[in-house]
Amino acid sequence: MKKITLLGGTGSIGLQTIEIIKKHPQEFELYAFAFGSNIEKALPIIEDLKPKYIVVQNHEILSKLNNKISYNPKVEFGIDALNEIVSLPEVDLVVNAVLGSVGLQPTLEAIKAHKQIAFANKETLVTAGHLVMKEAKKYGVELLPVDSEHAAIHQSLKGEHQDEIKKIILTASGGSFRDKTREELIGVTKNDALNHPNWSMGAKITIDSATMMNKGLEVIEAHWLFDVPYNQIDVILHNESVIHSMVEYVDQSIMAQLGTPDMRIPIQYALTYPNRFPFNSSEPLDLVKIGQLNFKEMSFERFPCLRMAYEAGRIGGSLPTVLNAANEEAVSLFLQDRITFLEIEELIEKELERHHVIKEPDLDTILELDQEIRKSVSHAVLKR
Amino acid sequence: MKKITLLGGTGSIGLQTIEIIKKHPQEFELYAFAFGSNIEKALPIIEDLKPKYIVVQNHEILSKLNNKISYNPKVEFGIDALNEIVSLPEVDLVVNAVLGSVGLQPTLEAIKAHKQIAFANKETLVTAGHLVMKEAKKYGVELLPVDSEHAAIHQSLKGEHQDEIKKIILTASGGSFRDKTREELIGVTKNDALNHPNWSMGAKITIDSATMMNKGLEVIEAHWLFDVPYNQIDVILHNESVIHSMVEYVDQSIMAQLGTPDMRIPIQYALTYPNRFPFNSSEPLDLVKIGQLNFKEMSFERFPCLRMAYEAGRIGGSLPTVLNAANEEAVSLFLQDRITFLEIEELIEKELERHHVIKEPDLDTILELDQEIRKSVSHAVLKR
Repeated sequence: MKKITLLGGTGSIGLQTIEIIKKHPQEFELYAFAFGSNIEKALPIIEDLKPKYIVVQNHEILSKLNNKISYNPKVEFGIDALNEIVSLPEVDLVVNAVLGSVGLQPTLEAIKAHKQIAFANKETLVTAGHLVMKEAKKYGVELLPVDSEHAAIHQSLKGEHQDEIKKIILTASGGSFRDKTREELIGVTKNDALNHPNWSMGAKITIDSATMMNKGLEVIEAHWLFDVPYNQIDVILHNESVIHSMVEYVDQSIMAQLGTPDMRIPIQYALTYPNRFPFNSSEPLDLVKIGQLNFKEMSFERFPCLRMAYEAGRIGGSLPTVLNAANEEAVSLFLQDRITFLEIEELIEKELERHHVIKEPDLDTILELDQEIRKSVSHAVLKR
Repeated sequence: MKKITLLGGTGSIGLQTIEIIKKHPQEFELYAFAFGSNIEKALPIIEDLKPKYIVVQNHEILSKLNNKISYNPKVEFGIDALNEIVSLPEVDLVVNAVLGSVGLQPTLEAIKAHKQIAFANKETLVTAGHLVMKEAKKYGVELLPVDSEHAAIHQSLKGEHQDEIKKIILTASGGSFRDKTREELIGVTKNDALNHPNWSMGAKITIDSATMMNKGLEVIEAHWLFDVPYNQIDVILHNESVIHSMVEYVDQSIMAQLGTPDMRIPIQYALTYPNRFPFNSSEPLDLVKIGQLNFKEMSFERFPCLRMAYEAGRIGGSLPTVLNAANEEAVSLFLQDRITFLEIEELIEKELERHHVIKEPDLDTILELDQEIRKSVSHAVLKR
C-alpha cells in the first residue's frame, strides 16, 4: 500500500490522480491532500477518501471547510503546512500537481525527506532546476515525470545509458491555434484558446500550449530532468499527439512511447512505477484506425515563446525564473480578459530583455524575483 | 575485445556484420568465419581480417579455397566443423547469419557452450523453437535478435516486466507487391519480387517479404524469443518501415523503436549489446523530412502465407518445420524460375494439409522431416 500526499488536488492532474487512486484502493491511500480554494471540488474527495491531513491556501478557506467535514482530519493552511505534509514519515509518494512556482519549496522538502515524487509541476523545474536537481542528486531521489512528454522520455530511457543519448525529441501537437498564421492570431479569444485539439487539461497549460510556451517550459524541464544540453533537445510538430516523445541514441535508434492522449496513463505510470498496472478507462491506441501520423518542422517565428524559452534556458541563471513568472502572470491576465493573446508573448519578451541575469540564484533570490516579475507584468498592464 | 564466430559470412547479413566488425577494430575480432561456397566474396574478407578458423560447405570448396589463402588458418568443412567453431573457448559471440534450418545444430551447440548469440537465422526458431528456447533457458543464454523487427521488440522490452506485456505489434512494409491485388500477382516475375521497396536484403528474405511469409516466420520467431502467445502477436501494414515494431503494455503504453531502414543498425546493436556504439553510415531518421507514417490493416486473404504461419504456429509440434521446409524449397524453386510466384503458397499449403502433426518432435525427427518435406515439394514440381 503506497501512502500518497497529493498537492494540487482540485486541478486537472489532481482530479485525475484521485481517479487513479480510487481505482486501486488496495494499492494507494490518499494520506494527505492539499488544494487551493475550490471547496466544491475538494469536499466530495475528502469525504470519500478521508485523508488524515488537509492543507488549503489560507485561513478563510480553512474556516469555510472546517465545519463541512464529517470526520476529524488535521486541517491547516499555507506553505509551512505544505512542507509538513510532504515530509510525513508515513508518506511514500508525493504527487506534486500544484500549478506554478508555488510548488518549489514543497518539492525541495519532499526531496530532503527522501520521498518518491510524481512530478507534474514543471514551473518548479523551470524556475529553479539547478537547485532541485542538485538536491535530488544529493538525496538520491528520482523525479517521476507526469507530463506525457517527459513520461514518454523516461520510458524511452529505461535500461539505456545516459552517455549514449544523441538527442531528445519532444513532440508538440501545436495547440489550439496550430492552423492559424501570426496574422490570424490578432482577433483570437480566450474561449478559442481553451479549445485544445487533443488533450483535456487545465486552463493555464492549455493557453501555454496555444502560445507554445508549454513546449518551451518542457524543453527546460527535460534539460533538468534528463541532464541533456539544450542543443540536444529538439521539438517537432506532431498533430496527432500519438508519439508522446522520443529519445534518439548514438546508433541512430530512436525509442518512443506512444498511446492514446489520456493524462491518466502517465499519472498512473508515475504512481505504479516501476510497475505498470492495467488501464482500461479509455480506448487503447489503434494505429490502423488512426491510419496516419504527421510530422512537421517547428517554427520559432510562428511560436516566439518557444524561442524565448530556449534562449532563457541556454543563458540560464535567473532568466528562466523571469520567463516563467512573466508567463504565469501574463496567462493569468489573459484568462481575466485583461490582455490579448499576442500580448502574452510581448509582456514576457519585455521582462526578459530588461532583466540583468543573476548566476546561480539561491532559493530566496528566486522567490523574490518571482514576485517582482509578476508585479512588474501586472503593473505594466494596469498602467495602460 | 569481443572475439566473434560468424556463420553465413557471405550472405547479406554476414557482409554487413563484416562491415561493422571492420569499423570497430578495437572492439571486435573476426575469430572464426563460415560461409557456403562464395569464394569470390569470402576471400577478400579472409585476407583482410585473417580469421583463425574457416569453415566451408564441402570438400570441393575447401580445396579451391586452400591454395588461395596467404596465411595459415585452420580450414574445414561441414556441419561438425560449424559445431566446433561456435564452441571454441576463445569465442565470446556467435553471429548466426546462415540461411535456413542448417543453422539449427550450431545454434544448439553455441547455447551449450554459453556463447552470446546474435541471431539472424529465424528459420531455426521456426523449425525448432521449442528445442532452442528450452536449451537457452537451461544454459541461461540470451538470443540477441538481429532481425530489425525483433531487435525493435527487444529494445522495447528493456527494463520492462514480461507479465505486463499486452501484445507485440509487428510492422510489415508489405514487400514488393504490396500495391498489387491477388489477380495482379499472376504474371509477376522473379525480378519484380526481388525489388523490395525499403530494405536491402538477401534474395530469399526478399521473396519471403513479397509472399508475407517473412512476417509469418517473424510471428513464430517472436512467439519463441519473447515467450508471448500467438493471440498476443499482431501484424499491421506500415509502408515506410520506420517503426520497426512495438510492444503494447497492460497500461496501454506502447513502446517502439524507430529508425532508418538499415540492417547494419540492428546488427551493430546485437554486437555491442548492452551498449550502443555510434553509427554514422546512413542518414539518421528525420521524421520531419518523411512527414508522414501510414498504417493499414493486415489481410490474411491477400497474404495467405501469413495465415498459414499463424496456423502452423498455433498448432505447433512438427507443423512449423513443415511450413518452413516447404517454404524454403518453394522459394528456391521460384528463384530458379521453375515455379510461378503464386505456386509458392500453393506448394506450402499442400504440405501443411497432408502432414500428420508430431507433438514435441526431437532434433532427429525435425532434421529428417525437414529433408523429407523439401524432397516432397521438389518432386511435386518435377513430376509435372
